[in-house]
Amino acid sequence: MEPLTRQLRRDDVADIVAMVEATAVFRPAEVEIARELVLEALGKGEEDSGYHFLLLEVDGVLAGYACWGPTPGTEGTWDLYWLVVAPACQGRGLASRLLVGVEEAVRGQGGRLLVAETSDTGDYAQAQGFYRARGFALAAHIPHFYKPDDGKLILVRTLPGRGGVRTGT
Amino acid sequence: MEPLTRQLRRDDVADIVAMVEATAVFRPAEVEIARELVLEALGKGEEDSGYHFLLLEVDGVLAGYACWGPTPGTEGTWDLYWLVVAPACQGRGLASRLLVGVEEAVRGQGGRLLVAETSDTGDYAQAQGFYRARGFALAAHIPHFYKPDDGKLILVRTLPGRGGVRTGT
Repeated sequence: MEPLTRQLRRDDVADIVAMVEATAVFRPAEVEIARELVLEALGKGEEDSGYHFLLLEVDGVLAGYACWGPTPGTEGTWDLYWLVVAPACQGRGLASRLLVGVEEAVRGQGGRLLVAETSDTGDYAQAQGFYRARGFALAAHIPHFYKPDDGKLILVRTLPGRGGVRTGT
Repeated sequence: MEPLTRQLRRDDVADIVAMVEATAVFRPAEVEIARELVLEALGKGEEDSGYHFLLLEVDGVLAGYACWGPTPGTEGTWDLYWLVVAPACQGRGLASRLLVGVEEAVRGQGGRLLVAETSDTGDYAQAQGFYRARGFALAAHIPHFYKPDDGKLILVRTLPGRGGVRTGT
């Protein structure tokens, strides 16, 4: 069946957390952050919490989700906090489909820049390659950021359309 | 009189906000963030809120403050959120004194890295020079991050002592 995108619902919490855990690349502290962002959005609403969600279903089962929001203290910069596809559903273009949905939503709000962060370790090589292929440029590498020998990469994509600004120095 | 450092008190909110505004370099949205972090720390406590404060008084009047906390999802990385000295008290080494206090507190908690962010515009040239002189290295430059023509610099300092890790790649 064709994947369907939909909004966050109250009964998604456990499925999202289970999916994040199933990827086996996120640390327990990160899984806890994923859960907190879902609860914040459900409790305060997406607008007030600053955490927006897009979910993807395949055959009625949760197959992936994205979470993003405006970067505090900026005008037109947005953070892509989470982009996760269930292990059983990977390799089918679902991450791209989610990202397209995120970018459309952000551009609709006048967003100019989309910022993603990921680890520099081999476990995240797939994520690194994905963002590069989708037009993100490497803006920073901070070694040992998450913990010793686990550094952070910051990837930035300039969104086309209104308010767009080239990110060349 | 010698400057005195002390902890955050409930009656500091208005003075801190007024001082941040008086520097004339922070945007209204940033001033609002400064206020929110103070309220969070007073409401939940510094440990639970994740926002720690150190204040500096000269002649019984607030002369500067720092706000920092553990970076979520990391082991041993801390964010320096705010380091502000009242305009009338600048040029007397108070920012360095605050930073020494922050670094001692972070090292005492096993912190390895201290991360500061600032703007790439001329208004923040003093801050940029200060961090460089205090051993911070430039880790990232993200043009147009805050708004068009107002980019972000990320500066990172490896703290000496236990748990220290060199940040060379």
